[in-house]
Order: sequence, then structure tokens, then C-alpha cells
Amino acid sequence: MRRTAARLADRREIIYFDRDDAPPRAGYDPRSLPPVRTSPQLRHDPLLDEWVAIATHRQTRTHLPAARECPLCPSRDGRQTEIPSDDYDVVVFENRFPALAAASGRCEVVCFASDHDASFATLPPQQARLVIEAWVDRTASLGALPQVEQVYCFENRGPEIGVTLHHPHGQIYAYPFVTPRTRQMLSVARGFRERSGGDLFGEVFAAERAGPRVVVSSAHWTAFVPAAARWPVEVHVFPHRRVPDLPALSCAERDDLAVIYLDVLGRLDRLYGVPLPYVAAWHQAPVRVDRELAWLHLQVFSVRRAPGRLKYLAGTEAGMGAFSNDVLPEEAARRLREAGG
Amino acid sequence: MRRTAARLADRREIIYFDRDDAPPRAGYDPRSLPPVRTSPQLRHDPLLDEWVAIATHRQTRTHLPAARECPLCPSRDGRQTEIPSDDYDVVVFENRFPALAAASGRCEVVCFASDHDASFATLPPQQARLVIEAWVDRTASLGALPQVEQVYCFENRGPEIGVTLHHPHGQIYAYPFVTPRTRQMLSVARGFRERSGGDLFGEVFAAERAGPRVVVSSAHWTAFVPAAARWPVEVHVFPHRRVPDLPALSCAERDDLAVIYLDVLGRLDRLYGVPLPYVAAWHQAPVRVDRELAWLHLQVFSVRRAPGRLKYLAGTEAGMGAFSNDVLPEEAARRLREAGG
Repeated sequence: MRRTAARLADRREIIYFDRDDAPPRAGYDPRSLPPVRTSPQLRHDPLLDEWVAIATHRQTRTHLPAARECPLCPSRDGRQTEIPSDDYDVVVFENRFPALAAASGRCEVVCFASDHDASFATLPPQQARLVIEAWVDRTASLGALPQVEQVYCFENRGPEIGVTLHHPHGQIYAYPFVTPRTRQMLSVARGFRERSGGDLFGEVFAAERAGPRVVVSSAHWTAFVPAAARWPVEVHVFPHRRVPDLPALSCAERDDLAVIYLDVLGRLDRLYGVPLPYVAAWHQAPVRVDRELAWLHLQVFSVRRAPGRLKYLAGTEAGMGAFSNDVLPEEAARRLREAGG
Repeated sequence: MRRTAARLADRREIIYFDRDDAPPRAGYDPRSLPPVRTSPQLRHDPLLDEWVAIATHRQTRTHLPAARECPLCPSRDGRQTEIPSDDYDVVVFENRFPALAAASGRCEVVCFASDHDASFATLPPQQARLVIEAWVDRTASLGALPQVEQVYCFENRGPEIGVTLHHPHGQIYAYPFVTPRTRQMLSVARGFRERSGGDLFGEVFAAERAGPRVVVSSAHWTAFVPAAARWPVEVHVFPHRRVPDLPALSCAERDDLAVIYLDVLGRLDRLYGVPLPYVAAWHQAPVRVDRELAWLHLQVFSVRRAPGRLKYLAGTEAGMGAFSNDVLPEEAARRLREAGG
């Protein structure tokens, strides 16, 4: 893997992750771009003790452009995109419309492939492996910034969940706080350890690994539908060995992840015979605290509850945080097992 | 107000809330309905220590029927609906497709008006007042059930958030647990009181009431956009006096609520010139615990961030619980102030 770092015309950072035999990547962005003027604010909600990012400049962000105007394709035939190179394998750059910036954190875009019509599920394993290497690199680099408390690698896929660019890409948020969900998971694990001396992640994962909802497993990873799944389609992928985050994975675990993750995504797309809208969320340990309590895992979930039906987060979920799921987790696991490629 | 309780053909409860001078309501449901066979389960998510309702029978629930097949209209011209009366003012009945039932709680439907094409915002104040009385009645009655820990009155409005029936209606969930959001708010308020001796709800509300984000206020209520609003449109409506729940409101406070709530909903619909999709969520104290910590309030929020644009809960919100809002709360408050009728 070869890493090439450069700057875009407005000083945003861009980093290419290429196969060793790839041609050199452009370092120069010939565009004339105004400086990024972002003023994202973090505001504290005192009643819930949570931080909310207020980022008004995002209202003007690029929204579902035609393929010939895609800002994530390589720069070719005289058209300059966000990536000033006529090809790339995997590339990461700072988002021009970040929800978090400067002291409030950082937002990056990860292009999974130069092919506009690809999707993560259809990448060759060596390409998925490059993406994993990019996630590892960004988790370590962003986690070293003084203002960052948690690094979150994720993919939003599909217009059904509001994706504004079709080009296969993910995002990385470097938060200046520990996110609410992570904070709660770690608080519950800490309480369990204090009360029982036990290891909550370890016990839950051991039970799921031996249980009826396993979808697929490999040498180093197991994918399962959790017993109390919140979403009609929800798969958790755990490494067999407790590690806090992606950089802590061994090379063998990373190689194996590329294979099992592609397997899981393929099952998701075969579930309804059409590309599944999903969120793929990497739950990593915070940068500074509670690293010994966490267990790295991937949560992939979808709002699709039937071919023509979506699940919406409305009154009970968005108002009270109480989820209702119309699909039995054991049935979802069975269908995903049968959707093997 | 006159209250008439009866049973539907499958033994579900139905309760009419009528003006004193309304004609008598039908007690007999002539339909031949199979018994409701529900098997909602509650499952505990051990990693987040939260309950999830699994209710698979809901997959077959009625989905956007034509107006002439609406199950929430009165029974007229030989067509039998869920309401076996040829008219009603406000009516509440047990949901045939509940997310919670029996030991796991209870779900009810509240029809706000017999007119299929009405909306809450266009109700006359005396009709809104009847709905408030229905909420009060159901909060007290459901809160008296031994398995119920929290009663939640809410309205999902608009197909953009997944509403499956257009007839103006809301819902009531009686949960057998304290919901995650309420639990967290009360935990934060308790921590604040233990650390400082202070009253968090009281301090936050006093600051908002004197601040730049007030939308409208009345003798007993103030509506404002919170400083750290999570949604592009979000209004909180607080009573000036601390009460734990709707039954604790005085008659004067209830009368006043009907007027200010209609005022707020009218502003929401004028914001973009088209009916706004929204969730209206009543935050009430739990039935048994922490009642002295809570402060009843209504939270109304929308996914609409611009005329043709919606906010989606994707990677950061649904994955990490960390919200990002593209609209400045002070600007939202200014626009809502200017949208007065």
C-alpha cells in the first residue's frame, strides 16, 4: 500500500491510498477555489447532556448531481473534480461541507473506488482491503489530534437514507466528544464490571456466537443479528479477539475482514434483489478513555422492512428513543444465511 | 365533556370524548372480527441496557388506504370502520396492530376529528380542548395499569415520516419501562441536583423564556426553539408552572394550551406554505419514579430542512446518536415568529 498526501486548492488535505504498483498521483489541484468558510458550532443540550453540531453552510451542499458532474470521480477530459488525479484506488479528503471543523472536530470523505457505478459490495477483496487500510490510517491520524475524542468511520448508502452523492463513498467523523451511543455502551459495560466483575461485551458476544442468529463466520470474525435488533435488517460483525479499534487489528484480521464484510454486504443486496439502503457504522473505542472496556465492532443496518416499505424513525424512536421492530431477529438471520452468494 | 366507553367486536376498548350536547354514541360494533392475535415481545439490549419491542404482526398493517376505505372515519352508508358510530368528536381505541400489548404495554389510536381531511392545526379550539381532555384521561387511566411505567401521547404527521393513515390522528403508547430519552433526561436532572442543589429544568426553561429563541408565549405556556435544537424545525412548549404530566394541568392551563398549540401548529404549516411533516411528542414524567424531577413539555419537530429537502437520520444520528443540524436555531425561531397567523 502506498500513501500519498497532498493539499487541495483551498488547503484541505487529500490522501491517496494506492496499490504498490499504481502510477503516481497528482499533488497539484489546478482549481481556483475560495477558502472553505465554515463556522460549525457545537452546542450543549443541557437537558440530555449531549452535544449537537450546528452547521448552517451545509444547506447549500451538492445534492444528487448528474453522473457527469460527480465531484468524487477522478479529474478527466478537462473536468476538475474534488480529486485532482485522472485515477485513484482509494482516496480520502476533507469534506468541503463539514458538520464538524477546526476545534469542533473534522469530517472526511472516503472514496471507495474511482468507478462511479461501483458499490462497496462489488469491490474486489484487495480493494476492500485498501479501504480498511485507509480507515486504519485515518483512525490513527485523527485520533492523534488534540481536539479529537472519538473517530467514526461509516457509510451511508442509498437515496432512501438521504445520500446526496451516488459515487461509492463513506465518511469519517472525528468528534471532539465521546458520542452518546458509545458513552452509553461504555457506561453500561462499566456498571456491569463494577457489579459482577464480568466483561459485558465478551459475554454478549460469546452468547451470540453460539446462538441461533449467526449469519456467517470466518477465522477471525463473526456476523450475527443481535437478539434485540432495532432495525428490520441489522447485522453486527465482531472480531473474535477483543481490540479497541481498527488500528489494533492484526494483518490477518484485516485480510479476513475484507472477505467477510464483502460477504455480508452481498447478502444484504440479495435480500430483496435490489441494492439495500444501509448505514454501516464502525463502533470504535474513544481515543483517550475507557479503551479497555470497548470491543470494536461493525453495525450494519437498514431502513428497508419489505420490498416497497421503509421503516421510519418517528414518534417512539425519534421522540422517546424506544425502538419498535417489525421483523423477528431470528427470521432476519435465517434469511441472511440463505442469501449467501 | 362526555365520556362513553365501549368494546369493539374483538374486545378492544373504544372511548368517545364528546361535547356535552353531542348525540349518544354507538356501543355496539356489528362487525365479525377475529380476535386480535398479537405476540409483541420486549427484548433487552444488554449492551445499551434498553428495551426493544419486536412486533412482527405489524408488517401486515393497513398502509395508506384510499379515503373511501379509511378505517378511522365514522361508520356511514353501510361501511363499517374501526369506529362503530356515524359520527364522533374525539375517539380513542386500542390499536389493532400494536407494537406493545398485554404485559408489554398498550398502544391506542386517538382520532382528532371525524373529518377525514382535517388536521390538528385546523381544529377549532374547543375540539383541540377535547383532544387534550382525551390525553389527560388516557394518561391517568393507562398510568394506573400495573404494568405501565410511562404514558406517551404523540402525533406522527405526514407521509414523509411514514404515516400510514391520512385521517387526522395521534397515538398513545403505554410503555412497561421508562423510555431511553426520559431516563436520560431524568438522570441528568438528578445529577445536576446532587451536584449543585439546582433545578435543571427550571433553570433551562427560565433562560429560554428570557432568551432570543422564544416563538410565542401565553398566560400559562411558552414555545421556544431550544439552543441546541437537533432538528431543522424544533419547538418546545413548556407550561410556566412545573407539573409532571398532563393530568396535573389546571383547567386554565388546558384551555390555554389548546390555543397556543394551535398557534404553533399554524406557524409550522405556514413555514414552507405546505403542510409540514412533524412529530409532536409529549414528554411526561414516569408513572412511578422521578416525578418530582420532571417538567411536562411538548416537543414538536420536523424532518423538513428546506422546501424540497428532508433531514435523514443516517450515520451520525442513527449510528452514534450525535445530531447535526443545518439550521441555526435563532434563525428558525425568527422565521417561526414571523409566521404568526
